[in-house]
Amino acid sequence: RINGDRLWDTLMDMAKIGPGIAGGNNRQTLTDADAEGRSLFKTWCDKAGMTVGVDKMGTMFATRAGTDPNALPVYVGSHLDTQPTGGKYDGVLGVLAALEVVRTMNDLGIKTKHPIVVTNWANEEGARFAPAMLASGVFAGVHTLDYAYGRKDPDGKTYGDELKRIGWLGNEEVGARKMHAYFEYHIEQGPILEAENKTIGVVTHCQGLWWLEFTLTGKEAHTGSTPMAMRVNAGLAMSRIVEMVQSVAMENQPGAVGGVGQVFFSPNSRNVLPGKVVFTVDIRTPDKEKLDRMRAKIEAEAKKIADALGVGCSVEAIGHFEPVTFDPKLVTSVRNAAEKLGYSHMNIISGAGHDACWAAKVAPATMVMCPCVGGLSHNEAEEISKEWAAAGADVLFHAVVETAEI
Amino acid sequence: RINGDRLWDTLMDMAKIGPGIAGGNNRQTLTDADAEGRSLFKTWCDKAGMTVGVDKMGTMFATRAGTDPNALPVYVGSHLDTQPTGGKYDGVLGVLAALEVVRTMNDLGIKTKHPIVVTNWANEEGARFAPAMLASGVFAGVHTLDYAYGRKDPDGKTYGDELKRIGWLGNEEVGARKMHAYFEYHIEQGPILEAENKTIGVVTHCQGLWWLEFTLTGKEAHTGSTPMAMRVNAGLAMSRIVEMVQSVAMENQPGAVGGVGQVFFSPNSRNVLPGKVVFTVDIRTPDKEKLDRMRAKIEAEAKKIADALGVGCSVEAIGHFEPVTFDPKLVTSVRNAAEKLGYSHMNIISGAGHDACWAAKVAPATMVMCPCVGGLSHNEAEEISKEWAAAGADVLFHAVVETAEI
Ligand SMILES: NC(=O)NCCC(=O)O
Ligand SMILES: NC(=O)NCCC(=O)O
Repeated sequence: RINGDRLWDTLMDMAKIGPGIAGGNNRQTLTDADAEGRSLFKTWCDKAGMTVGVDKMGTMFATRAGTDPNALPVYVGSHLDTQPTGGKYDGVLGVLAALEVVRTMNDLGIKTKHPIVVTNWANEEGARFAPAMLASGVFAGVHTLDYAYGRKDPDGKTYGDELKRIGWLGNEEVGARKMHAYFEYHIEQGPILEAENKTIGVVTHCQGLWWLEFTLTGKEAHTGSTPMAMRVNAGLAMSRIVEMVQSVAMENQPGAVGGVGQVFFSPNSRNVLPGKVVFTVDIRTPDKEKLDRMRAKIEAEAKKIADALGVGCSVEAIGHFEPVTFDPKLVTSVRNAAEKLGYSHMNIISGAGHDACWAAKVAPATMVMCPCVGGLSHNEAEEISKEWAAAGADVLFHAVVETAEI
Repeated sequence: RINGDRLWDTLMDMAKIGPGIAGGNNRQTLTDADAEGRSLFKTWCDKAGMTVGVDKMGTMFATRAGTDPNALPVYVGSHLDTQPTGGKYDGVLGVLAALEVVRTMNDLGIKTKHPIVVTNWANEEGARFAPAMLASGVFAGVHTLDYAYGRKDPDGKTYGDELKRIGWLGNEEVGARKMHAYFEYHIEQGPILEAENKTIGVVTHCQGLWWLEFTLTGKEAHTGSTPMAMRVNAGLAMSRIVEMVQSVAMENQPGAVGGVGQVFFSPNSRNVLPGKVVFTVDIRTPDKEKLDRMRAKIEAEAKKIADALGVGCSVEAIGHFEPVTFDPKLVTSVRNAAEKLGYSHMNIISGAGHDACWAAKVAPATMVMCPCVGGLSHNEAEEISKEWAAAGADVLFHAVVETAEI
C-alpha cells in the first residue's frame, strides 16, 4: 500500500503555491506560480532519485530507471496547472500520486523491468491558453509546435513567449518519447461515484468535445438614444444562442452536455450596445455521431438567430477531441487492482477531457478515478477525502507495478 | 454668426488627444488622456481671456466677465470625457461650441450683463465610473461628494484617488456656484433629426433612466463532467434576463428602450460554468410612470427566472434620473434663434442623459441638438458635418447672448 499521509501532505504543500481566493488555487499555466510549483515538484523528483527531462512544450518527465535497458517506460501523470479559481486536486492528485507510487517503490525496494516516468503535462486546463490538453496534444501529433507556441492568452501573450519567460522551455523534441503504457489518476469532477457510493472509478471511455468560439458582430450604439427597431444587438444574439445551446443539450439527453463559460462584450460599457461579443460554447458526449450532430445544429441555429437580428456570426472550432475508448488490458488491470485491494468500484466514462485522451493516440492508456464531494470541480471548493485520495493511489500503484513488471 | 471653420479645427485638435482604434476617441474620465485634454482646453480658455476655476469633482468653469457685478452667470457647456470607443463629438462639441460662442463675442466686442461660464463637467459618460453625469449630479445635490469619491472603476480604483492622481482636484465647493441659466449643445446621438431632415433639435424633454446592476450567483462547475440536471447556471439566467428585458422594452413601444451593454462572467473560463455573472440593464422612457413600471416588472421577472434555475439574484440601482422637462422660456429662445437664422428645426426629446438634466434641478436649463450620421453614437464611427456643427453653435450663440443680455 502507498503512504496516504505522505501523499496528503505533499498535496497540501503544493496547494500553498498559487493560492486562490476561497481556499483553492490559481496556478494557471506559465504563470510565476506555475514556475514555482514546477520547481517544488522537481525538488521532490530529485529527492526520489529520478532524472527530470523537459520537452519543448514545457512538459516535465521524471524517470525512475528500469532493469531492462530495452524496455519502454510506463508513464504515469497528469497536470499541476489549475483553473483561475481551481481546486487543489484537479490534475495535482494525478501527478503527486504518481510521485507517491515511485516513493513507495523506493520504500519497498521494488525494481521494475520498465522504467517509470512521472509526468507533469503542460497546459492541461486550457483556461489561459485554449485548447485544453495542449502539450499532450502536441506530444500525440494532434497539434504542431508552432500552433501551440502561437496560442494567446486574453492579454495577447503567446504560449511560446511565456514558456521562455518562466524558464521552463526544455530541449527535448515533443513526442520523441515512446511509451509502453500511460496511466492517469484523477478526481472524477462529477457526481456519479459519490452518488453510487463507490471509491474507485474504472475509466473505460472519455466523452468527446467541441469548443466553438463564436464572434458576433453588431453595431455599437447608444443604449438610450437608439430606438429598438434600429438596434443590431450582438448581446441579444448571444443570449439567444446560450438558450439554444441549452435546448440542444436537453434534446440530446441522456449523455450529453452543453454550456457557455466565457463571454466577452465589447466595448463592455453600460450605455453602449455591444458591437462585438465573443464567447465559447462547450459541448460533449461519448457518442461521436451525436457530438457532430450537436455541433452542426448549434452552428446552423446560431446563424439563424444572428441573421434574424442582422448580427454577423462567425464560428471557429478552437478545441476538439473525439470520444476515447481506453485500452482494455490496462482497464482490466485497474479493475483487478481495485478488486484485489477490496475497494468498491464501477466502470465510468470521463466527463472531462484529460491528457490520457491524447496519450491514448500513441500508447495503450487508461485512467483511475476517485470521487469528489458533490461532484464539484473547477471550483475552489473542490474537495476529496484523504481516504479516497489514498485508495486511488493504491490502485494506481498496483496497476502500474503490474504493467511495469517486477 | 460663429466661425464654423475655427470650431471645426478646434474639434479636430481635441480629437488628437486620446485617439481610439478606429478614428474615434478613448479619453475616459480621469485618465492621462483626460488630463491632457483638460490642459489643452484650459490653454484655449486662457487665450480667450477667461478665468478657469475647478471644483472638488474636477469640473472646469471658464468665466468671461459680465458688465453687472450682481448678475448671475449663464453657464454653457457639456463634457470632454468619452466612452472607451467613443466619437469625436459626443460632449466635446458642446464644450468647444461654448468656447466658440465666447471667441465670437470677443471678435465682435459683445459685452453681456451676465457673465458667461464655459463648463466642462467631469465624468459625464459613466463608462469608467458609474453613474453617468456624476459631477453635475453632485453639483445639483443628487449625490454626495463622498459617494462620488468612492465610485470604483473595473480595476477597483476610486474616483477620488484618480482625480488627485491626474492633478485636477480643484478647491471650489461643488454646487456653490449659482446659475442664471444653463445651456448645453449636443449631437442628437439618435436618428430622428437626420430622418426628418432638420438641422436643429429644440430639446423640450429628456427621457428618464434606470441602471439596474444584477448580480447572479450560480455554482462554478466543470462544463464537461457536470450533468445538465445538476447545473446552477448563472450565465443561462443572465441570457434569459437579457431576452426578458428586450420583451419588456418591446411591450412598452413606442417611446421606451431597454438593453444590456456590460456583462462580466466569473471566472470567465471556457470549461467552467459561471459562478457569478454581473451585468447592467439600461432602461429609458420619457414617461415616469412607465419607467418605474418597467423597472418593477424587470426586477420581478428576473427573480422568477433566477429562482427557476436555483440561481441567486440581487439587484442594485446604480444609476437613475427622472424624465426632465426643460425650461419653457429657454426652449423658446432656442427655437426663436433657429427660426431667425433660417435653420430647419423641430422639437425633440433627448434619448441620452446629459448634464443639463441635473443642471435643470438647480437652474432654468435647456439644450440644442444637431443631427449625427445614421443616428450613431457611442461608436468611434460617430460623424457629423461641419455645417451641422456650425448651425447648432450659431443657435447656441444667439440664445446665450439673448439670455445673458447685451
Ligand atoms: N480535467 C479537466 O478539467 N480538464 C480540462 C479540460 C476539460 O475541459 O475537460
Ligand atoms: N450623452 C451621453 O451619452 N451621456 C451618457 C449618459 C447616458 O447614458 O445617457
